[in-house]
Amino acid sequence: MSFINQWLRSDIQEIQAYHVPKLQNMIKLDAMESPFLVPEDLIEPYLDYLVEAQLSRYPDAGAEELHQTLRDLMDIPEDLDILLGNGSDELIQLLALACDTGDTILSVEPSFVMYQMIAKFTRLNYKGVMLDKNFEINLDETLAAIEKIQPKLIFIAYPNNPTGNAFDRGAIKKIIEASDALVVVDEAYYAYARNSFLSEISSYPNMVLLRTVSKIGFAGLRLGLLIGNPETIHHLNKLRLPYNINTLTQVSANFLLKEKDRIAENAQVIIDQRERLFGELKAIQALTVYPSDANFLLVKTPDANALFGFLKDNGVLIKNFATHPHLANCVRVTVSTATENNVLLEQLKSFYG
Amino acid sequence: MSFINQWLRSDIQEIQAYHVPKLQNMIKLDAMESPFLVPEDLIEPYLDYLVEAQLSRYPDAGAEELHQTLRDLMDIPEDLDILLGNGSDELIQLLALACDTGDTILSVEPSFVMYQMIAKFTRLNYKGVMLDKNFEINLDETLAAIEKIQPKLIFIAYPNNPTGNAFDRGAIKKIIEASDALVVVDEAYYAYARNSFLSEISSYPNMVLLRTVSKIGFAGLRLGLLIGNPETIHHLNKLRLPYNINTLTQVSANFLLKEKDRIAENAQVIIDQRERLFGELKAIQALTVYPSDANFLLVKTPDANALFGFLKDNGVLIKNFATHPHLANCVRVTVSTATENNVLLEQLKSFYG
Repeated sequence: MSFINQWLRSDIQEIQAYHVPKLQNMIKLDAMESPFLVPEDLIEPYLDYLVEAQLSRYPDAGAEELHQTLRDLMDIPEDLDILLGNGSDELIQLLALACDTGDTILSVEPSFVMYQMIAKFTRLNYKGVMLDKNFEINLDETLAAIEKIQPKLIFIAYPNNPTGNAFDRGAIKKIIEASDALVVVDEAYYAYARNSFLSEISSYPNMVLLRTVSKIGFAGLRLGLLIGNPETIHHLNKLRLPYNINTLTQVSANFLLKEKDRIAENAQVIIDQRERLFGELKAIQALTVYPSDANFLLVKTPDANALFGFLKDNGVLIKNFATHPHLANCVRVTVSTATENNVLLEQLKSFYG
Repeated sequence: MSFINQWLRSDIQEIQAYHVPKLQNMIKLDAMESPFLVPEDLIEPYLDYLVEAQLSRYPDAGAEELHQTLRDLMDIPEDLDILLGNGSDELIQLLALACDTGDTILSVEPSFVMYQMIAKFTRLNYKGVMLDKNFEINLDETLAAIEKIQPKLIFIAYPNNPTGNAFDRGAIKKIIEASDALVVVDEAYYAYARNSFLSEISSYPNMVLLRTVSKIGFAGLRLGLLIGNPETIHHLNKLRLPYNINTLTQVSANFLLKEKDRIAENAQVIIDQRERLFGELKAIQALTVYPSDANFLLVKTPDANALFGFLKDNGVLIKNFATHPHLANCVRVTVSTATENNVLLEQLKSFYG
């Protein structure tokens, strides 16, 4: 037996490392990325701005300018504070580290897989409460689980991934009110949603909001943010690794995220395309498409593996949930430009035609 | 009492967030940064290379090209593997998360403060064994502590920060051999050191090596690496957050770190300056300067606070250990270019003249 097999705790040894498919020249509709590039006219001034960054020096540890940039971009009120992470993932981990030995993280199922993964990484317990058949929060069951388990941390994705729907707001509020946990409302897809909990943070001392710039055109930056009441953010900040946001991310975000109008226009294109795609997919008899407040659609198919393989052979990559315990035969498609969506639709029509 | 005061475990509440002094237009000799900028002739081709990066897409999760770049830069043999982090800090945290509830991290004191901090963040125990009066490992005491405490993880900085010396190799080997712990030899300052444990990794299944590009000109990138036997790296990689190294860091490092010769030349300049500065500081009677294998010197002064204040008033920032429990009246100065070192020397001579 090798050293590491003896040394490493078995729950980690058993994990299969997160699999990322590596495919060139595909239409990528698998990862909720934005299809929009940095606008041509911004490239020169962006590089001029970037070249001023001193890479030999540590980053600005407080990242104050970036705080202000995000505040402006997302209309974050002055009475709330921000904590930055390398994507939401680092912030989910930070919140888990804030918990104590023996604590439990609660979320709903199916939802973002990293809540459960990070509970494991950070040696916490995890409890997932199943959504109902319409992917809505099963409020009675969730409240009963909260009462019984007394979770320390609750994650609610709003809208939810991979189902796409935004849960009933009343149900979420009841969960926040019923629990002593810190409730993290994860608004990764806020730019495509009809509603938000941003304006509710001040009313709920035990709630914080998680966002990211990954879905609005900047997945490559790995920049997430936690928004909360100042005292909460002040204390959680003690767990942040110093200099966690590197210089290139700070400088790039400070330049590129100032384009608030263009980012909003791009989001609107995707929202319009989502509505069109929803209608077109609904018209394909073999498919069931679920309502979405995000930049993707969950679709139930007669045979997800066959469809996934067909699309892949034809240069389109989607997310296949064929083997998912609660999403049998479902696939998830990212909403893209009209051109890319048309390719998808044509292939779907030919496959099911 | 506010929500967060009730919610957050008290050992974290008590922490003072890591303080980073914010000073403009100073000669910065406090943070072991390299004084060398990206060479003028590389800036255009660097930006041309960078502009090809697609920021709307997630980074290359495996970062294979960057693995190869670092392998070439640091002459890492083919039979070892690499794990990347946002600076060494993220990798220290990953190693701590690999431990189990109740485990202990052991290191020597004084050493890099993040070993102890991250033990706290990750809810592990921490034991620091004091170095002897020459800042050498107290081998008997360390072995006795290992025997008694059975640590899961041992950190040894080689060379050590903030003392600057490289510990006796035989002592380190005895520690590795005596323990069932994973021993992490932290070679953050490898570029300035006379020796390394890189060639020893294959011989010690329970040893891994930690490095960073922060001290060789790229602190702004936040890029650290763990080097180890393939099976060890394979399993530890399961704890890595997917996409942890962002696109800009990957692309920039792939371009800038290919300049192996220039990076080595810059390191040699600093090594030569370190030897000169060591001699000049030794000649100042009031000071005791300690031997260094790193890009900084630890200096004992008659009154660290007074010296620190004087230098700061004159535009030079150094690290003040006046209140450090084991380094009373010591300061730490980063070795810089001849020009900046001359400014420091002149001021020291005027202060102690």
